[in-house]
Amino acid sequence: MSDCRVDQGGTDCLADMKRFVEAASIAIVGATRQTGSSSFNIVERLLSHGYTGSIYPVNPNTPEILGVPTYPRVGDIPEPPDMAVIPLWERAEVPRLVRECIDAGVKNIIVVTQGFADGDAEGKVLQKEILRIAREGGARILGPNSLGVANAFIGLTTSFLPHKMDRVAVGVICQSGVFFLHMRTFTALGKAIDIGNGADIHFVEALRYYECDPDTKVILLHIEGLPQGRRFMEAALRTSLQKPIVALKVARHSEAVRAVESHTGSLSGRDEIVRVALKQCGVLLVNDIGEMEDLAKAFLRLPPMRGRRVGIISVSGGAGVMVLDACQDHGLRPAELTDETRRRLQELSPKWMKVANPVDMWPLTAYSGLSVSATALAGLKALLEDAGVDGVVLALATPFFEEALNVADAVPDLMRAYSKPISWWTFTGSDEEKDAALEKRGPVVFQSARRATRALAKLADYEDFRREHSR
Amino acid sequence: MSDCRVDQGGTDCLADMKRFVEAASIAIVGATRQTGSSSFNIVERLLSHGYTGSIYPVNPNTPEILGVPTYPRVGDIPEPPDMAVIPLWERAEVPRLVRECIDAGVKNIIVVTQGFADGDAEGKVLQKEILRIAREGGARILGPNSLGVANAFIGLTTSFLPHKMDRVAVGVICQSGVFFLHMRTFTALGKAIDIGNGADIHFVEALRYYECDPDTKVILLHIEGLPQGRRFMEAALRTSLQKPIVALKVARHSEAVRAVESHTGSLSGRDEIVRVALKQCGVLLVNDIGEMEDLAKAFLRLPPMRGRRVGIISVSGGAGVMVLDACQDHGLRPAELTDETRRRLQELSPKWMKVANPVDMWPLTAYSGLSVSATALAGLKALLEDAGVDGVVLALATPFFEEALNVADAVPDLMRAYSKPISWWTFTGSDEEKDAALEKRGPVVFQSARRATRALAKLADYEDFRREHSR
Repeated sequence: MSDCRVDQGGTDCLADMKRFVEAASIAIVGATRQTGSSSFNIVERLLSHGYTGSIYPVNPNTPEILGVPTYPRVGDIPEPPDMAVIPLWERAEVPRLVRECIDAGVKNIIVVTQGFADGDAEGKVLQKEILRIAREGGARILGPNSLGVANAFIGLTTSFLPHKMDRVAVGVICQSGVFFLHMRTFTALGKAIDIGNGADIHFVEALRYYECDPDTKVILLHIEGLPQGRRFMEAALRTSLQKPIVALKVARHSEAVRAVESHTGSLSGRDEIVRVALKQCGVLLVNDIGEMEDLAKAFLRLPPMRGRRVGIISVSGGAGVMVLDACQDHGLRPAELTDETRRRLQELSPKWMKVANPVDMWPLTAYSGLSVSATALAGLKALLEDAGVDGVVLALATPFFEEALNVADAVPDLMRAYSKPISWWTFTGSDEEKDAALEKRGPVVFQSARRATRALAKLADYEDFRREHSR
Repeated sequence: MSDCRVDQGGTDCLADMKRFVEAASIAIVGATRQTGSSSFNIVERLLSHGYTGSIYPVNPNTPEILGVPTYPRVGDIPEPPDMAVIPLWERAEVPRLVRECIDAGVKNIIVVTQGFADGDAEGKVLQKEILRIAREGGARILGPNSLGVANAFIGLTTSFLPHKMDRVAVGVICQSGVFFLHMRTFTALGKAIDIGNGADIHFVEALRYYECDPDTKVILLHIEGLPQGRRFMEAALRTSLQKPIVALKVARHSEAVRAVESHTGSLSGRDEIVRVALKQCGVLLVNDIGEMEDLAKAFLRLPPMRGRRVGIISVSGGAGVMVLDACQDHGLRPAELTDETRRRLQELSPKWMKVANPVDMWPLTAYSGLSVSATALAGLKALLEDAGVDGVVLALATPFFEEALNVADAVPDLMRAYSKPISWWTFTGSDEEKDAALEKRGPVVFQSARRATRALAKLADYEDFRREHSR
């Protein structure tokens, strides 16, 4: 790991970032008294997550909010808080409030307010003004147009929207609040930093934090624009060698590029060039939020995929064909099974069947008299023991759900014993509830042949990158 | 609609197919006495679905199965049943049983058994033998290696695996039992025909049934191989002009092509050629089961998309950018809003915001004081009334779920009033349960920007096809 104490450029960027993400005290400047689902009350959010630090709501019109004493002004708070959040709607008031925060000794300020570089010409001027005030006062700005930070490990969130978080080793950096909302099947939010318009804190600073953060094993990026090009690439390369970075680069097309300019005021740069540069730094590109979710799970819970040869075992021949297509779509190939593996599987098979990869479980279970789970486990073991297999895709689900649960119980030990990933496609007939029940027992489960296979491909891509750079 | 009474080639293929899918009586030849989850008992399946016809289990070793009287042989059944199913594991017995069925006057026979063209050389010979027996006896064979047929409208299924079905206007033709299992969020199985190895009944015959079936509005195909090339194309073109055909063509790559040969014994043909031919017949190609599910819902429940200009309204600017990318990926384009539409939306917006497409709801709701649902409905109406908008993508979900439910209530009327589709992306933070609650109120909901947008693109593709061919 690189030395996390020294920073390029002389400023202690890492300490700044820690004060944001690990803040032990927060002022909410202009905290609302309203509560309930449409109140966008940050104090309420912090209390609901059990934030371990001190909360200082600033509001001159009420003595307390949800039982937390308020202060008329930031300067009235007894000690300078680690961080202040400005969630007001009115952009014109923001420069004055930023100055008040700085005068009160606050060094880290989150500006939630919109209408700056994401708005009109006047907004651009205002954003520059805020930045100037911060620089002069030695303070750092996250935003404007940002939900701020979240940290499940200390129950911290500055989001005015309710969201889930979990103590998972996943760190998010985003340019949209979309990524504070939990993903569909996996709460990939252990920590999060929304850089919003990125007036001051941008990807490089946020990445620096996760690079050095022992709580973070996988980093997820949502990228609209990358103005810090070269500095970003250096940081990304250094970080990728330590932990995987998964990036959803949006604004791939012209219309979206124009929209980004009014969303976060970012200049996107030419998409193809950005994508090539990201790949060179080992960043794993994904196409949608679902894939991001898949890779977060895969990198957290699966052993490395050390090659591109896939063993496939399916309870349906038709499903096996779909996994094969997905393998070739994603640069993987079906493993050539050894004679020994074939012999073992042939023993379970009807005579007319020539064992091949994909292993079609159905004739095995129909003719051997073994249960579906016993067949699946025998097949999984045979594939994992084969030296020509780098990872396995298993296609198994309802109507064999009870059997699938038995298989799920065995999967974690199998992956540990052979140090090879098993990617499970719970094909047609499953649902999120059943998938969650399977995942609770240890396996990583995907919703389609494509997703199950693509996850293995990205694990292999990451190993390739590490291998090349460790020479 | 073409004349459904006359068939090419002189045989009454349609009547044959009706006897399969609408069978009023079934013999299960070699019905098992076992019951419960791993018994694969077709009698049990039929009873659980409330099959409205007569069930004749054939088993010489027991007087009844689940209360249904059995017969020692097919010939002992008092009247020839419309259809017989042979679900045995032992392929060698099948020719004899097929002959027994024919001798008993059965004209429609489903062979579930595997190990024919999907097996070894001996299996291929056996399959020919079965076909010869059937032809001589004037009978039709579905299979071998087939789950047979399902028909939710009469509670009929010959599948030995449990599956869901619903009285939806969707007809499935497949070469794998995977498609008998319900899809994740939508039971796209009103009727189904598994052609398996396709020794006799193949796509053309099955398609003929759905072409003429008033219960079927959308046809889903799972294609491993298409040996009936030209006849299929004629049938597909004729049918496409009446109702949409959605096809998942698998075995796109070399390895999968080889696997298909041992799965259903089909020859796949060159993938690119097959795909071009399918498109020419108006068949809508999809890449996975999820997309098939999406299109089944879209064609059943959305009005036509009469052009390619999309209005986008999103509660998050970041989500709007993703929809834009998806539009351009799928050959759609963001609509240019009229001055009138802009003016209406500008009235709700903060001054610094220049209204554009995508419409970013968040600043509107934050600054106008309107609720999220009121903003969404105002935005939806403005977009739908714009003559330059052919369809709308709405990105809205948790944490505004209660508001989303209000919007959902209004969506069916809006779509009817303007006769334009609204495609709803319940972005990050939703789940299958919430999505189902929204769909119950009428809208069609998708899990990603890509899926929501792709559905509109396919609706537009289908309209293009119909327009071209109606000239």
